[in-house]
Amino acid sequence: MGKQITAKFEALHQFCVNAIKAVGAGEEIAHIVADVLLEADLRGISSHGISRLPVYIKRIKLGLMDAEAMPNIVKETLCTALLDGNNGFGQVGAFKGMELCIKKAKETGVGIAGVRNTNHIGMAGYYAMMAMKEQMIGMVLANASAHMPAWGGLKACLGTNPIAIAIPGGKQPSVVVDMATSAAARGKIIMAARRGEPIPPGWAIDKEGRPTQDANKALEGFILPLGGPKGYGLSLVIDVLAGVLTGALFGSRIPSMTSDWTRPLNCGVWLLAFRIDNFVEVEEFAIRFDTLIADVKDSPLAPGFEKIYVPGEIEMETREERLRSGIPLDEEVMQELKNVSETTGVPLITY
Amino acid sequence: MGKQITAKFEALHQFCVNAIKAVGAGEEIAHIVADVLLEADLRGISSHGISRLPVYIKRIKLGLMDAEAMPNIVKETLCTALLDGNNGFGQVGAFKGMELCIKKAKETGVGIAGVRNTNHIGMAGYYAMMAMKEQMIGMVLANASAHMPAWGGLKACLGTNPIAIAIPGGKQPSVVVDMATSAAARGKIIMAARRGEPIPPGWAIDKEGRPTQDANKALEGFILPLGGPKGYGLSLVIDVLAGVLTGALFGSRIPSMTSDWTRPLNCGVWLLAFRIDNFVEVEEFAIRFDTLIADVKDSPLAPGFEKIYVPGEIEMETREERLRSGIPLDEEVMQELKNVSETTGVPLITY
Repeated sequence: MGKQITAKFEALHQFCVNAIKAVGAGEEIAHIVADVLLEADLRGISSHGISRLPVYIKRIKLGLMDAEAMPNIVKETLCTALLDGNNGFGQVGAFKGMELCIKKAKETGVGIAGVRNTNHIGMAGYYAMMAMKEQMIGMVLANASAHMPAWGGLKACLGTNPIAIAIPGGKQPSVVVDMATSAAARGKIIMAARRGEPIPPGWAIDKEGRPTQDANKALEGFILPLGGPKGYGLSLVIDVLAGVLTGALFGSRIPSMTSDWTRPLNCGVWLLAFRIDNFVEVEEFAIRFDTLIADVKDSPLAPGFEKIYVPGEIEMETREERLRSGIPLDEEVMQELKNVSETTGVPLITY
Repeated sequence: MGKQITAKFEALHQFCVNAIKAVGAGEEIAHIVADVLLEADLRGISSHGISRLPVYIKRIKLGLMDAEAMPNIVKETLCTALLDGNNGFGQVGAFKGMELCIKKAKETGVGIAGVRNTNHIGMAGYYAMMAMKEQMIGMVLANASAHMPAWGGLKACLGTNPIAIAIPGGKQPSVVVDMATSAAARGKIIMAARRGEPIPPGWAIDKEGRPTQDANKALEGFILPLGGPKGYGLSLVIDVLAGVLTGALFGSRIPSMTSDWTRPLNCGVWLLAFRIDNFVEVEEFAIRFDTLIADVKDSPLAPGFEKIYVPGEIEMETREERLRSGIPLDEEVMQELKNVSETTGVPLITY
């Protein structure tokens, strides 16, 4: 692993906003994208943070993505909406989709949105948490460039399509599940390759189908689905909801974001928000939720564990710590951000 | 593994209907429960089929479950409903919940239902397929008796809470994901214990936290979540939606269906149905879906595989075969059904 630099959240956020504006985006878009990217860095999910900015900018400069595009509504009912992302930032497509879900859920109890013709959305959990902050339950499914084979196959035909679900807590920490349907997120394998680190067994096979712990061979080969056929099934249904249903591309038709410089991604997102108080009152829900979480946390510990965490809790602790003491960035990511700084003319200040 | 007997679908279905009526259920309830149980047997999911009938009947006879109870609506909006299962059959609670989701989705595009105070629902995919048959997408989440620890814990505090999603196909087979959030369904470990067979590594730990392949020790110990922390996260959010949100019991508070003879289960279900044609037209969806599935199925095969299946396809093939040539039943299940026959006075004819 190379050296790490620690950067201040506010400084990185400002750089991100300015760099995105420098390639053509307006103020609102730049803030949405910077918020989503930096939130991932704060939460320790550096694979989905500012490290992705250079590839977004490269795609914009090549005309493969439209920095200025806002989504428009194609089809709408009281509780559903289909949006066209107009090849803008995936973060903007997903953000506007969830905004609409929340609005509809306020009115009718439930909102479902599909977004097509969009791009990489970053951390899926961000949008699920938007619903959570409104005392709703949020769910986000997204498809992505194909890097995973079907169960039993040797062709990349599915993305590591993530599922995110966020649920507001009472006194106990909120639950934010945000997971790839692969054994591991592709972003983690990319980071391991960058750092020259091996990956754990069971994450990937090489292009001939042999198990590998070499991150570079894994990136040339195939990431394995979570738990074999189960992860394959989840990834497939996510592709259907986020891609087939919305009118986006799907399966192997979505080009690689990091190696195909000829076509827009045109990937898709499916989002759901629904009100808690159509089932039980929010206060009662919080008490019941806290009871469950307290019970889970009260488990005797298995050997090697020091604490029971709920999903999203480590990320929340990391967030608080990084807001105080800064965001560590790999040397290689810093170099790429310096390149962005040079090509956009936006100064990179990290303190 | 003991001997197997092959029984005709119609005969087993009739036995099931009559036995359920004999313990107090009306015609409609008996048919719903028999349909769900036998559908699991047809699809090769014998862990969730008629093998569960004896324990249902035992619970009814002990006054822990009400064979006659129909659910009632507690709270309702245009696109949501909360039902109380009144401690009736879980199959009836989930069936009526999905019926209501479909009705609401016909009117508004989306229906979400929660059901509390119900019992074991059998195969979750059954209810998701009800939506699928209406050209909708169906999703079902259910909580259950706690047999799984939190990630890092040594206390059963979560069920192997299943998720089912069903999506209608065009010319290609429909996709029906129906999976426990454990490494394996508890029902499969129960069947292995009955048959005296070992279970694969990674499925379970014994009560001291040591890995085990002994099905009986696994049943005394803990089933592991699917893919470690990811399955734990999924199981937890399912418990929140199916249990905390609906007003049912949750976590370790749900008693064991098969060893606690003092209390009703009071578990819960969360169901969603939504129309496809609020996003793309059904015909267009079918063409796009078929394109994805054809592409997935066209993968070169990994060593040891003969065909790429989509989730639910093997089950559909098994269904067709078993409708023709019968349903295999383990000797031990047959013996339990004979006991049911004796105590209810309903003749058990298998041909």
